[in-house]
Amino acid sequence: MFYLIGIGLCDEKDITVKGLEIVRRADRVYLEHYTSIIWKSKEDLEKFYEKELILADREMVEMQSDDILANADVENVALLVAGDPFAATTHTDLILRARKKNIPTSIIHNASIFNAVACCGLQLYNFGETVSIPYWTEKWKPDSFLKKIDSNLNSYLHTLCLLDIQVKEPTPESLTKKIKSYSPPRFMSVKEAATQLMELVRSKASIILKENTLCIGLSRVGADDQKIVACTLSEMTEIDLGPPLHSLVIAAETLHPIEEEYISQFRS
Amino acid sequence: MFYLIGIGLCDEKDITVKGLEIVRRADRVYLEHYTSIIWKSKEDLEKFYEKELILADREMVEMQSDDILANADVENVALLVAGDPFAATTHTDLILRARKKNIPTSIIHNASIFNAVACCGLQLYNFGETVSIPYWTEKWKPDSFLKKIDSNLNSYLHTLCLLDIQVKEPTPESLTKKIKSYSPPRFMSVKEAATQLMELVRSKASIILKENTLCIGLSRVGADDQKIVACTLSEMTEIDLGPPLHSLVIAAETLHPIEEEYISQFRS
Repeated sequence: MFYLIGIGLCDEKDITVKGLEIVRRADRVYLEHYTSIIWKSKEDLEKFYEKELILADREMVEMQSDDILANADVENVALLVAGDPFAATTHTDLILRARKKNIPTSIIHNASIFNAVACCGLQLYNFGETVSIPYWTEKWKPDSFLKKIDSNLNSYLHTLCLLDIQVKEPTPESLTKKIKSYSPPRFMSVKEAATQLMELVRSKASIILKENTLCIGLSRVGADDQKIVACTLSEMTEIDLGPPLHSLVIAAETLHPIEEEYISQFRS
Repeated sequence: MFYLIGIGLCDEKDITVKGLEIVRRADRVYLEHYTSIIWKSKEDLEKFYEKELILADREMVEMQSDDILANADVENVALLVAGDPFAATTHTDLILRARKKNIPTSIIHNASIFNAVACCGLQLYNFGETVSIPYWTEKWKPDSFLKKIDSNLNSYLHTLCLLDIQVKEPTPESLTKKIKSYSPPRFMSVKEAATQLMELVRSKASIILKENTLCIGLSRVGADDQKIVACTLSEMTEIDLGPPLHSLVIAAETLHPIEEEYISQFRS
């Protein structure tokens, strides 16, 4: 059996009891590289799970899936991922590959930012389409997310903005060389996201999103040191929410009274 | 401390390790009535959690929150809810009440249908606004969800339809009597939801939703006997997906190739 196990939002105890039982009796357990970076350490997870973990980077999950799936028809193999397993297409693809090899599969769900974001007090059924905000470079400044934010605002819906995560990105210099070298991992902060959005607002690229639009910044959701701040978009460019992961929510213009009351505790 | 603990999608082992540790050391643990109905039984949960559980119906959670929160400033009190705690406004409200009493609060997240729905292969960031479909009566046939489904389809987005759950509803006869009697609990099936939607399509109330729109029916997501079926809306009126809970997804007209490939395994 091939198991895809979501290990949740924050630390080694966010795995479900069902997930932990599978990990402990599995023949081989892979830990997605990106997961291992946001968690305290691979060693902490190994100690608590009482299991040796094999690090699998995105390249391995995408290109060497045959290795991961080897013998999974007769053995129990598990891949651990942050949040819920189906947040990324990579994992959907992996399940498809397993099924083509007639390997039975099982999914162990967990919390992810897609539902945990409601801890800021905005109701999940008032959210529209989720967007991703990528890091800009000097020459590459995509802004397709802006149209979606405007469209949600126009329908009185909130927008969850997933912020860029760059893990094991080849350095620009190494792209032309034989030996690849990698940039240190970086995680977009709420401050950085707000700064990019403000650049678009200033250039009048946005129609509805304004510098005084209410935003909610969230960091380390589910952890003991979780932080939530509610302020305007322009104020958000000055907010430091500490270590990753961060998420940004653009709130609808009209809030439900309970949303309004809940949010008020996070206003700076 | 007052803990709001999501116990996940299906059975007693879907609680997180963190959640289970809190339950076992808590002074008082409430189990939301609605949760206790969809789970096998309160006794199964009590046995596995090694803890006596106090049943709390919606009325108690909403009207007698003072009893639930009593002494939570010096004791550890937990309320267990299905899925993730923040899917319902009732729980947001409970946290607000606790904070007004200066009771510290803690949320333990878990999977809910809002993120687990992605197990059907449709990507979460291609979903628009979520809608709720209520049971119609002979005289009361609200259809505000239809405009939202049409709006999502118009933006090439999928729609998650949460289907009505009626637990501890007073019978119509008892509303005028002194002693309340309650109807047996009922949970809307995918078949019932599709039938109501088809009635709207036939009456030409929908602009974009058609009888041949692709729909995905899901039942008991996360359980061993989980079922997923992909077919047209009109075909869905004939599909029996077994016991609750059910959810229905209205798929966007255009699918990503990986979505298309993944969905194909569920076509009947």
